[in-house]
Amino acid sequence: MPSSNRLLRVLVTPPKPGMLDFVNKAKWDAWKSIGNVSQDEAKQDYVNLISSLVAAEGPAQVVAKPTGSSAAFETLLVTTEDNITTIRLNRPTKKNAITVEMYNEIIKALELAGNDDSVITVLTGSGDFYCSGNDLNNFTKIPEGGIEKLARDSGELLRGFVKAFIDFPKPLIGVINGPAVGVSVTLLGLFEVVYATERATFHTPFSQLGQSPEGCSSYTFPKMMGAAKASEMLLFNKKLTATEACQRGLVTEVFPDSSFQTEVWTRLKAYAQLPRNSLALSKQLMRGVDKERLHAVNNQEVEQLVERWLSDECMNAIMSFFQAKARL
Amino acid sequence: MPSSNRLLRVLVTPPKPGMLDFVNKAKWDAWKSIGNVSQDEAKQDYVNLISSLVAAEGPAQVVAKPTGSSAAFETLLVTTEDNITTIRLNRPTKKNAITVEMYNEIIKALELAGNDDSVITVLTGSGDFYCSGNDLNNFTKIPEGGIEKLARDSGELLRGFVKAFIDFPKPLIGVINGPAVGVSVTLLGLFEVVYATERATFHTPFSQLGQSPEGCSSYTFPKMMGAAKASEMLLFNKKLTATEACQRGLVTEVFPDSSFQTEVWTRLKAYAQLPRNSLALSKQLMRGVDKERLHAVNNQEVEQLVERWLSDECMNAIMSFFQAKARL
Amino acid sequence: MPSSNRLLRVLVTPPKPGMLDFVNKAKWDAWKSIGNVSQDEAKQDYVNLISSLVAAEGPAQVVAKPTGSSAAFETLLVTTEDNITTIRLNRPTKKNAITVEMYNEIIKALELAGNDDSVITVLTGSGDFYCSGNDLNNFTKIPEGGIEKLARDSGELLRGFVKAFIDFPKPLIGVINGPAVGVSVTLLGLFEVVYATERATFHTPFSQLGQSPEGCSSYTFPKMMGAAKASEMLLFNKKLTATEACQRGLVTEVFPDSSFQTEVWTRLKAYAQLPRNSLALSKQLMRGVDKERLHAVNNQEVEQLVERWLSDECMNAIMSFFQAKARL
Repeated sequence: MPSSNRLLRVLVTPPKPGMLDFVNKAKWDAWKSIGNVSQDEAKQDYVNLISSLVAAEGPAQVVAKPTGSSAAFETLLVTTEDNITTIRLNRPTKKNAITVEMYNEIIKALELAGNDDSVITVLTGSGDFYCSGNDLNNFTKIPEGGIEKLARDSGELLRGFVKAFIDFPKPLIGVINGPAVGVSVTLLGLFEVVYATERATFHTPFSQLGQSPEGCSSYTFPKMMGAAKASEMLLFNKKLTATEACQRGLVTEVFPDSSFQTEVWTRLKAYAQLPRNSLALSKQLMRGVDKERLHAVNNQEVEQLVERWLSDECMNAIMSFFQAKARL
Repeated sequence: MPSSNRLLRVLVTPPKPGMLDFVNKAKWDAWKSIGNVSQDEAKQDYVNLISSLVAAEGPAQVVAKPTGSSAAFETLLVTTEDNITTIRLNRPTKKNAITVEMYNEIIKALELAGNDDSVITVLTGSGDFYCSGNDLNNFTKIPEGGIEKLARDSGELLRGFVKAFIDFPKPLIGVINGPAVGVSVTLLGLFEVVYATERATFHTPFSQLGQSPEGCSSYTFPKMMGAAKASEMLLFNKKLTATEACQRGLVTEVFPDSSFQTEVWTRLKAYAQLPRNSLALSKQLMRGVDKERLHAVNNQEVEQLVERWLSDECMNAIMSFFQAKARL
Repeated sequence: MPSSNRLLRVLVTPPKPGMLDFVNKAKWDAWKSIGNVSQDEAKQDYVNLISSLVAAEGPAQVVAKPTGSSAAFETLLVTTEDNITTIRLNRPTKKNAITVEMYNEIIKALELAGNDDSVITVLTGSGDFYCSGNDLNNFTKIPEGGIEKLARDSGELLRGFVKAFIDFPKPLIGVINGPAVGVSVTLLGLFEVVYATERATFHTPFSQLGQSPEGCSSYTFPKMMGAAKASEMLLFNKKLTATEACQRGLVTEVFPDSSFQTEVWTRLKAYAQLPRNSLALSKQLMRGVDKERLHAVNNQEVEQLVERWLSDECMNAIMSFFQAKARL
């Protein structure tokens, strides 16, 4: 045990049934006050706390993988019809939070959609949420290499994920069926068209979690809406309504919730009848102007985010998140 | 005759008086179904069909060229007054569609305006239309080198035309007196100020014609309005009202049609009294940031468009256009 | 005396008590008509006229410099509280016009704020104005090296001033408490967030004074609002209301004047509680994409402005300004 500090004793104590008591007592100030704990010890404490809190949540959802079909996904529903390939995030009970598996499946689904004979590709969500962003449980399965390896692996995953959007060769349409959070918002800067229900909101609370922007938003958002509106979102966590997002250029058009699906899919079916190559080549022309820049931005964002994940600010904020969750 | 296919027999048959019958029967599917026609033969068919349809339209407008005055144009009215050089597209009966001759004359007029002692230069249209874009008849006068030569020549013409706008050294003001289509819209991203009557609309139906964006719009439009609004126009053919164009930054201000000319020219005359060099150098400063990029974008757009013009998608769409016209 | 021209005789005559007469007579045309005056002589005339007009204004404000505290400024009020460093322009009787001293003090204050332990930095103004821009009296204290040296020195000062904003390492918030003019407007493109009272206006009348844009606005303004809206401001002197500035992305949000300070500072205090490093690094990430470009733009803008300051157009416009002032 690295320290006899009272908090640390609590941290390494198996949390249940005492966990709620612990959570109520563990104020953030306490963490900051551990003057005699080294950086390595702090990381170990993070690992211990997170593991115990997550263990208290019960086992993660595990679904048996269907075999024999390459188009079968565990976290997505992917269909191709009327020249449209639709990738539907399909963890509605978890607000379509993106797990490690879902990151990998979206990369795979985009690769398939890019090569199939569809004209346009649609990304949307099942249920009332579009996507609640990165599943913070991704930060709780700490591998043997420890928290540094977790951060590096997560960085590589994110880099490849965003790269798949930068390089996607066809028009990509977002059908935003409800609230969107984090990376599911920032990526919209790489879509061709974004249609949103009036119920949708757009929230990128990076600094609250001690993190920093990704999805190329540090480049696409200021380009799209100017620095003064982009920073309000990316630094100061402003949550936008669908109408505000439309005024800022993040969303192409907003629809009443009652007619959202009907109106949007009518349009998409019309778009999918347009000359296939003309659309793909025009999209690639527009993307080409920025492509090299986007890859560089993606790399820099990921590099900084990996450092952020290993920072006290970020680990504290994530612990705070799980403590608040445990308290409920 | 390259094929005994029924459609092809029709294609090489002198079209009148049977042309309307032909048009009614020649469904798009038919064209696509010609499995045994090679790419070269398809191009020859295009040449034959287009020639015959255009021949049916009657002779092209030919106006005697006035001699002896370098400022005299056939397709433009160009005047200089009150420090303002005005270039007025002047084919009102053709909605100011841009012929090969008009492309060349606009290049010449911009060169003269850039070197005269005016302070600002205005581009506007005669009649109710601002400009209906590229005159598709440009694609019907097929030279000896065949359709490849036509495409290459058209590409060089377009490249030089857009270049004249990129390099124009003074403030360039668009006075958009009515609907604008195609390249007359995309070029507006290279203007300093764009004033529009409320009657104006802005339409870039490239993919409908199997084509792709030009006029540097693949760069200027996303920069101005964000990718989600730019792609709706440039990929999916969204036609904007003047007010929508103003909200997206394509138009500086919209005026009631009744007072449009009065209000706009009052302003322009005031602008033309401002210090000449200050205006020109400030414009060049702003353009300088992007100039190299704009030339590169222009080159890439033209290169892609030449390939598009030689594609089946595009030739089919243009034939479809002329067939629909013949049907009226 | 370089010339016996009637105007020049007037120019070198001690102006008081005859100055108002002189001003009424000295029409702009007269200046232009001096065909036999060389460029050097014209500059000397500028020096003489400006000196005499300024002399007629009475001595410049001189305030005793407080000694012994490095955070004491003559033209600014700088405080740090609640993790916020506030830099307040403090020449309210001069509408916070920026003198040479104030340029230097703002550079110094930004350097200190960048290195102190505050989380965010705020720039605002004392009194009813935010800032009336460059104090034209800066052009009246002509050093021994003459007007060329004045222009070069002013250029170096401006370059360093704008550089301090480009390189500022933390979120920078503008609290725009009233009208803003000139460089105080253009610099806003380098801020993270801009909150404005509804009373604020935004005016960049560069061409009126024969000058050209600075503060990186030739890059940030077109990027933010598109060329058609940027040129209207930077070339044609359009003054924006706060609401218009917000629609164009120059301002983040507009507040009623009655609740402006309360609402804004409530937010700022909340922002200042967010993780310090996350905010600073996120800001640097967003700035990093553009930083090299911004420095290049700053250099080009300054280079052009130095040439402008030495031009007849500009000297004439500044003389005109002081003559109009003397006339009041």
